Amino acid sequence: MAKDRYQRGIEVVKEFTVPEPNNPTGHMDIGEGFNDIAPDLEKYVVEFAFGDIYARPGIDKKQKVITTISALVAQGVPQIEMHVKTGLAVGLKPEEIVGCIIHLIPYTGFPRVLNALKSAQRVFDERGIKVETPEV
Amino acid sequence: MAKDRYQRGIEVVKEFTVPEPNNPTGHMDIGEGFNDIAPDLEKYVVEFAFGDIYARPGIDKKQKVITTISALVAQGVPQIEMHVKTGLAVGLKPEEIVGCIIHLIPYTGFPRVLNALKSAQRVFDERGIKVETPEV
Amino acid sequence: MAKDRYQRGIEVVKEFTVPEPNNPTGHMDIGEGFNDIAPDLEKYVVEFAFGDIYARPGIDKKQKVITTISALVAQGVPQIEMHVKTGLAVGLKPEEIVGCIIHLIPYTGFPRVLNALKSAQRVFDERGIKVETPEV
Amino acid sequence: MAKDRYQRGIEVVKEFTVPEPNNPTGHMDIGEGFNDIAPDLEKYVVEFAFGDIYARPGIDKKQKVITTISALVAQGVPQIEMHVKTGLAVGLKPEEIVGCIIHLIPYTGFPRVLNALKSAQRVFDERGIKVETPEV
Amino acid sequence: MAKDRYQRGIEVVKEFTVPEPNNPTGHMDIGEGFNDIAPDLEKYVVEFAFGDIYARPGIDKKQKVITTISALVAQGVPQIEMHVKTGLAVGLKPEEIVGCIIHLIPYTGFPRVLNALKSAQRVFDERGIKVETPEV
Amino acid sequence: MAKDRYQRGIEVVKEFTVPEPNNPTGHMDIGEGFNDIAPDLEKYVVEFAFGDIYARPGIDKKQKVITTISALVAQGVPQIEMHVKTGLAVGLKPEEIVGCIIHLIPYTGFPRVLNALKSAQRVFDERGIKVETPEV
Repeated sequence: MAKDRYQRGIEVVKEFTVPEPNNPTGHMDIGEGFNDIAPDLEKYVVEFAFGDIYARPGIDKKQKVITTISALVAQGVPQIEMHVKTGLAVGLKPEEIVGCIIHLIPYTGFPRVLNALKSAQRVFDERGIKVETPEV
Repeated sequence: MAKDRYQRGIEVVKEFTVPEPNNPTGHMDIGEGFNDIAPDLEKYVVEFAFGDIYARPGIDKKQKVITTISALVAQGVPQIEMHVKTGLAVGLKPEEIVGCIIHLIPYTGFPRVLNALKSAQRVFDERGIKVETPEV
Repeated sequence: MAKDRYQRGIEVVKEFTVPEPNNPTGHMDIGEGFNDIAPDLEKYVVEFAFGDIYARPGIDKKQKVITTISALVAQGVPQIEMHVKTGLAVGLKPEEIVGCIIHLIPYTGFPRVLNALKSAQRVFDERGIKVETPEV
Repeated sequence: MAKDRYQRGIEVVKEFTVPEPNNPTGHMDIGEGFNDIAPDLEKYVVEFAFGDIYARPGIDKKQKVITTISALVAQGVPQIEMHVKTGLAVGLKPEEIVGCIIHLIPYTGFPRVLNALKSAQRVFDERGIKVETPEV
Repeated sequence: MAKDRYQRGIEVVKEFTVPEPNNPTGHMDIGEGFNDIAPDLEKYVVEFAFGDIYARPGIDKKQKVITTISALVAQGVPQIEMHVKTGLAVGLKPEEIVGCIIHLIPYTGFPRVLNALKSAQRVFDERGIKVETPEV
Repeated sequence: MAKDRYQRGIEVVKEFTVPEPNNPTGHMDIGEGFNDIAPDLEKYVVEFAFGDIYARPGIDKKQKVITTISALVAQGVPQIEMHVKTGLAVGLKPEEIVGCIIHLIPYTGFPRVLNALKSAQRVFDERGIKVETPEV
């Protein structure tokens, strides 16, 4: 059954990723880089974060990524970039990702927002993504 | 034209509010409580936060409230309660609001999430709202 | 096996608690107050926070509580009070708890430390605990 | 000489306080409320925070309080109220205190600012202070 | 009139900048680097942050920069460097900027202060600025 | 006597450091890099942080480093790396340092923990340290 949670977690990771030929979990950091110092960490990421929390019904995939990105903008952590990719993987339009970050100006202030937009911009640039900009 | 931004802002406030008989901006704190010490504050809230940012196209009303609540959970500020009400006003289901907050456990940790759920619970209790809880 | 994780989690909760006659999990908030809006939350607290993380070998119980309290002081969340009780339950001396909080002055500044000491003082007062104060 | 630092610290505390008949350090919390659990804390507040840091030349008293208040607004800690009083004690005009807090909207977002203004408003109300509001 | 706010904003940006031959807004990041993904962002920075908030009377230019820097130190964001330059542009002495950052040790702890001083030092070094250090 | 505090501080710094041939304070950043802009900063670090706070009895050296690391993980500041080294210097086993950081997942969320583990991993790699990983 623990096996099951890990399996379910990996399935969920894949739903939030565009898999690559040799890398089924794609851009997603599931903690496997720490196998030398904390080999159980990957288990917590996969089983708990993905197998339990991301798998939870109630909100849809796009809402889950919006929720994640918004909290990371408020914290100012570098993981924003990874979750911009996750957002694209589940079908958020680039302008929705930008829209969420811009929406946070009144709540987190400009510096956090500008830093997050830089992460988003880097991802879009790498992938040749053009953002449809709204008329305002 | 500044008049226009204020007007537009007030319209947007109303879209995110269930208005009450004597209070068209309902539960929303637009800063009018500070007219004695900073009479221009209301203008910034209405014109900038609502007239510019909330009015911006690109994401829909529900996404805007999810974005807001998520950042506030990460910051741990008491305004969460007000934005739970805003979420209900734009048609977020209570279980979606709860779902977003629960989704943040891996990103902000349990304490911030538990404190935010307490705010949501208080709003639901006051209004006699029952939450449809997911099978997990 | 999920049953096992829950069971193990509850055992761990008890190790970090002084149980009370009608309340085996004592002062510990395991999320059961949210059964009406998020009945699965308790499961995550018990299974993941306690059954996985608190149960993890490598550091001892006192170190786990010191780690917890220190992070909560830095965040300024109200859960400090609960974890001061947890510290006492695992045998941390009141002066060790105070010592950890005081040690954080150069890292978090005075306001966070003073607010945390207030929480500790409240717990000590409620329980008639006298703190052995060091000669400095 | 340590005596000297303590003495100097107390002198500085008084410069930032409007002393009251039976309370020479006035509204200032210098940590003496923790004598039962951490009797050395007061020494660190007085000797280090005031005797070393507040006594440091380079910026003037008003600048010191502005600096302090701004950081506390960003952190969202309740000590803002005490430092609004400190600001008044060193001659900051109420509208300068409000002006600093309002200035932080683009950096910390509205919620932190609104919460800080509430603290300032409470102090002004208690003391019957009217704020000269700028034409904007 | 919106034109006016933008114009006023640009005027204010210039007051807080030492303009360079081909770059009237000098070191100031007004968001124009995001024209490809959020072309309206520059408008919010110029019109709201500068045209409304920086233009607000009540505190002077030096106080505005001190307020800004102090909040950024507390948040630990990289924009500190830009605002050290802004401080120099409005006539804050390097020792005043250093003095404000040092003053925050009791409020934000040493790490945030050391990181901010590193930003200030970098700006001073680039410009060959010598800091008059106080006798303490 | 101030001399004494500085001397005591330097002694304490050495207790938390593995000294190097030409560098008695080893890996420890005591602020001497800022002698050009704030020559008194080193004094505050040595006298206050080490001479007063680190020298304080009540908790032991290992507990002091655990306390420090935990707060830094919560804040997300880069000083974590230095204090991982400090932990090793006072005899914390690498698996204890990792254990503390992992223990924080439920309190600070995964991103802060992953970022801190990267710092620890870098220190262990540089020094050829193998971590004994627990069976879990």
